[in-house]
Amino acid sequence: MSLTPWKILESSYLRPKFRQDKCELENGKILDAVVLEFRTWANVLAITKDQKVVLVRQYRHGTKEVCVEFPGGIVEKDEDPLEGAKRELLEETGYTAANIIEVGRVYPNPAMQSNELVCYLATGAEKVSAQNLDEGEAIEVDLMPLDELVALAKSGKFPNALQLAVLFHALVYMNRIA
Amino acid sequence: MSLTPWKILESSYLRPKFRQDKCELENGKILDAVVLEFRTWANVLAITKDQKVVLVRQYRHGTKEVCVEFPGGIVEKDEDPLEGAKRELLEETGYTAANIIEVGRVYPNPAMQSNELVCYLATGAEKVSAQNLDEGEAIEVDLMPLDELVALAKSGKFPNALQLAVLFHALVYMNRIA
Repeated sequence: MSLTPWKILESSYLRPKFRQDKCELENGKILDAVVLEFRTWANVLAITKDQKVVLVRQYRHGTKEVCVEFPGGIVEKDEDPLEGAKRELLEETGYTAANIIEVGRVYPNPAMQSNELVCYLATGAEKVSAQNLDEGEAIEVDLMPLDELVALAKSGKFPNALQLAVLFHALVYMNRIA
Repeated sequence: MSLTPWKILESSYLRPKFRQDKCELENGKILDAVVLEFRTWANVLAITKDQKVVLVRQYRHGTKEVCVEFPGGIVEKDEDPLEGAKRELLEETGYTAANIIEVGRVYPNPAMQSNELVCYLATGAEKVSAQNLDEGEAIEVDLMPLDELVALAKSGKFPNALQLAVLFHALVYMNRIA
């Protein structure tokens, strides 16, 4: 068999954004594949003037654990991912950053998601306001020296694959990967 | 609000492995959260004796693109992740490796998946048999010099977040991240 795209015979929705495609493969095999039609995500590794990374801690229901992540979230319809990253940084942490640049784009999971995660690196971050959270959102802000965060990630104690992808591209930009 | 775990009021299944929990948040808000109950995944960055990485190319229906990845897949019930990684490497590529070690464990997506991806690094890989694919699986094997793969990843042309997490931990092990 060759790497031919699967033929979609019909599509339905298990719930909004959870599309189920009845697909026909090249060899005639039929299977049901789920595709999560999420919008673009944006995350930002924001560093303060004294080289501390702005982190958020929140309960994640998949693993049922409190996870440490970079601020970020879902880019809104018709919103530029850069603006989405700035908005999420401000809403979740109350921080803005003097400089923010895109360092990479990744697919969270090509097998079943169509969306991209856009990775940003910000410097000169400073707190300018209180958090402005959505109803039901509970987020704690934490500051950690950049080198401590990198050491944590290297030791396996920053185990979120999506956040590691953001860190990877930030470290590439900083010339820290040989 | 604090980072309290959500209270599950009731659970149902959209389809097998796709659990939908009706949750109550600390502030009384009710929401439906989906958790994908996938099994453990294992991926292996396998390097041949002449420093080439064994890669697989396959069609991924989420992005509808052919993706380059490290060999790997779903660990079977009662199977050790290490054995799963070895099995997937052999089935997908026909390669075995003289040495294989775990370099990290990550969560593919803590917000909606409970499973882990176990990352392996193998050296001394060599081809010992033909592929042994599941019905309907179409996978092409590719060899790429390690430094070329790292350069590709650094330039953003290896955009799969899960594979980048595997590469991150392999590069940590090789002392290539400062």
